[in-house]
Amino acid sequence: MWADLQPVGRVRSGGYRRFAWTAEDATLRQWFAAEARRRGLDLVEDRVGNQWAWWWDGPGSVDDAARAGRKGVVIGSHLDSVPDGGAFDGPLGVVSSFAALDALRGDGYEPTVPLAVANFADEEGARFGIACAGSRVLTGQLAVDRALALTDADGVSMAQALRSAGRDPGAFGPDPETLARVGCFVELHVEQGRALVDLGTPVAVASDIWPHGRWRFDFPGEANHAGTTRLEDRRDAMLGYADLVLGARHLATQRGCVATVGKVHVTPGGVNAIPSHVTGWLDARGADEDQVLALVEDLDARAGELGGSVTRESWTPTTRFDADLAARLRGVLERAGDAGHPVSVPVLGTGAGHDAGILATAGLPTAMLFVRNPTGVSHSPAEHAEAADCHAGVAALAACVADLAGGEAR
Amino acid sequence: MWADLQPVGRVRSGGYRRFAWTAEDATLRQWFAAEARRRGLDLVEDRVGNQWAWWWDGPGSVDDAARAGRKGVVIGSHLDSVPDGGAFDGPLGVVSSFAALDALRGDGYEPTVPLAVANFADEEGARFGIACAGSRVLTGQLAVDRALALTDADGVSMAQALRSAGRDPGAFGPDPETLARVGCFVELHVEQGRALVDLGTPVAVASDIWPHGRWRFDFPGEANHAGTTRLEDRRDAMLGYADLVLGARHLATQRGCVATVGKVHVTPGGVNAIPSHVTGWLDARGADEDQVLALVEDLDARAGELGGSVTRESWTPTTRFDADLAARLRGVLERAGDAGHPVSVPVLGTGAGHDAGILATAGLPTAMLFVRNPTGVSHSPAEHAEAADCHAGVAALAACVADLAGGEAR
Repeated sequence: MWADLQPVGRVRSGGYRRFAWTAEDATLRQWFAAEARRRGLDLVEDRVGNQWAWWWDGPGSVDDAARAGRKGVVIGSHLDSVPDGGAFDGPLGVVSSFAALDALRGDGYEPTVPLAVANFADEEGARFGIACAGSRVLTGQLAVDRALALTDADGVSMAQALRSAGRDPGAFGPDPETLARVGCFVELHVEQGRALVDLGTPVAVASDIWPHGRWRFDFPGEANHAGTTRLEDRRDAMLGYADLVLGARHLATQRGCVATVGKVHVTPGGVNAIPSHVTGWLDARGADEDQVLALVEDLDARAGELGGSVTRESWTPTTRFDADLAARLRGVLERAGDAGHPVSVPVLGTGAGHDAGILATAGLPTAMLFVRNPTGVSHSPAEHAEAADCHAGVAALAACVADLAGGEAR
Repeated sequence: MWADLQPVGRVRSGGYRRFAWTAEDATLRQWFAAEARRRGLDLVEDRVGNQWAWWWDGPGSVDDAARAGRKGVVIGSHLDSVPDGGAFDGPLGVVSSFAALDALRGDGYEPTVPLAVANFADEEGARFGIACAGSRVLTGQLAVDRALALTDADGVSMAQALRSAGRDPGAFGPDPETLARVGCFVELHVEQGRALVDLGTPVAVASDIWPHGRWRFDFPGEANHAGTTRLEDRRDAMLGYADLVLGARHLATQRGCVATVGKVHVTPGGVNAIPSHVTGWLDARGADEDQVLALVEDLDARAGELGGSVTRESWTPTTRFDADLAARLRGVLERAGDAGHPVSVPVLGTGAGHDAGILATAGLPTAMLFVRNPTGVSHSPAEHAEAADCHAGVAALAACVADLAGGEAR
C-alpha cells in the first residue's frame, strides 16, 4: 500500500503537498476506494465527503445493527498533508487500519459489530485554513456556510473546490445518520514528538489533546527615517515584537508549555524605515490549561509595558479522550505485550489537533494510538517511523479492534 | 507656492505619495515649469529629466559663461516623496530656492554668474528602489541599463514608466554637458532629526553624510509542528532574529550609531509552524565609520553563535561636503546673523542620503543647509517646519547665493 501512495503529491524536497479537493487528493481518494473494493468492503461517502469502508456481513445492514445497539467500531485517519509535509502524518493511520483489518481476517476473526476504516477529508486545513474541516462539518462544529465560503490562496472557495472535485456543495453538511453508525473511533497516528523515543517504547495511548490557542500581539511605533532619527527619539515597533519572541520562549520554559511565534507582519516593512506597526502571532499550548493561560497573561502584561496589546484569536480547552476507552485499550495492549511478554504502554497527551479530538468533542467515545517517530519531527519531510514500529502499531490496532468489536480470533 | 503643491499626491493620512514618473509627479513637474516661466527663467531638462530653471541675462549663454570660467550657482532639491511622506522633505528646498531668488531680485541683486533652481527626479527611490536615481544617472553613478531595467511593485520597468511619462528612454543617460554648467550646488532641506531643536537654532550647515550600509541576516531553523515539538528539540529561526533586533539596538546605543531592523521575511510563515528560516535586514549608520563597521562585526559574531550568517548588501563610506564651501557659507550666515545680531551656525552631519551627496561624490563643490524640524520626524506626515524657520531658511539661502554668485545687492 505504501508503494502506491509514495509518489502522490510528492514535491522536490521529498515532502508532500496533498491539499483537500485537488487532483492529488482525488488520486488518494481513488486509492482508498480501490483498497476498500479489493477487500470487499462497502464504501460509503458521507455528506462531507469523508470516506467509510465498512466490513459487516450482517445480519441486516450497518444501520440495522446500530439500531439494534451494535454500533460500529471505526479506525482510520486522513490522507491529506500540510505543505511540504511528511509521509506518515495521516496515511500511517489509514494504511495501518487496512493492515489491521487484513491481520484480523487472516486470523479468522469475525466481528460481532460492524467495523470500518475511515478517511477524513481536509484534516490539515492546509488549503482553506481550518484544520479537521471534514470532521468539524460532519459533527456540526463548523457551520456549512462558513466552510463553503472559505477561500484558498488563489481565492478559490471551498464550494468551488468541491464542485471542481465533482461534488455537490448543496449536499455538504452535518451527517447525523453517518454518526449514528459509529460506536467508537480509534485513530492511529505517527507521534509528533520524541516521548516514545525517550521511553524506548513503540506505541502509546493518548490521554488528551492539550489546550491550545492563538493570540495576536500588536505593537505600535512611529514611522521615521532609519538614518536620521536618534535612538532616544524612536518608537520602534520591532523592539516590542523581538521582546515578545524571546519572552514567549522564556516563559514557556518556566511554565512547561510550548510557545511559537511563526508569523509576523511589519508596517511599512522598508529596510530604511523605522517600523510604525508590528503584529506577531503567538501559538501557545501545554499539558496544563492554567499554565498556558498564565503564560499569555504574563506576555500580555509585558506587552502592555511596551505599549503593545494582545487579542485572542482562538482558544480550545483540553480535549479529553474517553478515559474508560483509553484504560481498556491500554490494558489490551499491555496484556498482548511484545512477543508474549507483558509491556508497559505509556499514556501521552499531545499538542496537535486531530479528527479524533473533534469526534471526542462531539461526544463519541474516541481513542488514539501513537507510533514512535525516531526524529520526533512532523509536518516536515524528516517525519519518519521505522518499519518494525509500524508493524507494532498495526498489531496494537488489531488487538484493540478485536477487543472492541467483540469477536473471537481463531 | 505651498498652496499649489499642497493637494498633489495627498493621501488620507495627510501624508504624500508622489512617486517618480507618475501622474502626481507630472503635476509637480508642470508646477515647477510654471514657476520658472512666471519668473522668466530658462527651463532646461537634462537627459535624465532633472529640471533646471536658469537665471542668466548674459553676456552669452549659460554654456558660454561656463566656458569663460563663470560656472553656475545651483540651488534646489526634489519634489517626489516616500510612501506616506511629509510635505517638506524635498519641496521645502525647491520652494525656498524660488523664494530666495525672488528675494534677491527684490533687493535688485544681479549675479555675476548664471544661477539656477533645480528639481532632481526620483530622489526618494520609492518606486524603483534606488534613491537619488536622477542625480546618480546624471553623474554616471548608476548605469543606464540597470536603471531602465528596475521595476516597480507592479512590475513596470523604469523604461516603461519614462515612456508613459512621454519621455524617450533612448535619450536617458549621463549628461556631462549639464554638469559642465554647474560650479556649485547648495541644497536646502528640512532637518530629519532634532539637533536644531535642541540647539535652539533655525538653520545649520551640513558637514557630511554619515557612512551607511545595509546587511542581510539569515537564520536557519528546522520546520516542525508548533504544538508537539518540545522546546529542547526545536531549532526556531525566529529566536535568532529576535536576538539580532535587540542586539542591534543595544550595540547602537553603546557605539553611538543608529541601527534599524525594518524588514523581515519568515519561512514558512504559518502561525502553527516553527520557522525554518528567518531573514532580517539591518540598516546601520553613524557619524563614525569605524563604529558602524564594529557594530556590524559584533552582530555578525553574535549571529554566528546562533547559527546565523550575515551578507553585506550595500555600503557607502562617509560623503564629505566641500569643507571650504561649508566654512564659507557658515561665515556668511554667521555674519548675516539674526536681525543684525551675529549668530552661531551649527555644522551637522546627517544620516540621510541626498542628491547633494551624489553630486559631491561626483566631484562638484556641494553644500547643504538644514532647516529646524520641531517634531524631528521625517518620512512621515508628522514632518514639519515652522513658517518663521522656513523664512530664516530662505534668507540664509539668499545670503549664500548672493555670496557665491558674486553680485552686489542694492
